[in-house]
Amino acid sequence: MPRVVVDVMPKPEILDPQGKAVLGALPRLGFSGVSDVRQGKRFELEVEGEVTDEVVAQVEKMAGTLLSNPVIENYVVRVEQDA
Amino acid sequence: MPRVVVDVMPKPEILDPQGKAVLGALPRLGFSGVSDVRQGKRFELEVEGEVTDEVVAQVEKMAGTLLSNPVIENYVVRVEQDA
Repeated sequence: MPRVVVDVMPKPEILDPQGKAVLGALPRLGFSGVSDVRQGKRFELEVEGEVTDEVVAQVEKMAGTLLSNPVIENYVVRVEQDA
Repeated sequence: MPRVVVDVMPKPEILDPQGKAVLGALPRLGFSGVSDVRQGKRFELEVEGEVTDEVVAQVEKMAGTLLSNPVIENYVVRVEQDA
């Protein structure tokens, strides 16, 4: 069953303390070679019936109003076929 | 510059209160047709130099130890070319 995925990430110019915390922890755990880490949210929505353009447009509206804060976050809506 | 993405989602059998909260809010905002919502985390890692198999293997280790809790979460590691 296809699902609609919404990825919400902090805008590049916005400080991302969670990402910085992860970046700071990596060397302590012996990991190297990572220059930046950003942390955001991932939503997986299961919809009733076919994923039509109209459904995707609805999810775009949900993403811009409920799932993200457009002042500090960007979002991307994608349709994913089940693996 | 390519980056490595780690998607961390709650295991299907685990209750996802955040997802349920979003699902419950949708009808109040006039949205219909969504049968389930699951909320997880998305990490975008920028690595120094080329994304080799060895780098991806390192990120897999980071994902299983630092970025997710294997008891309650699943993770997927992907390489994304910059849009």
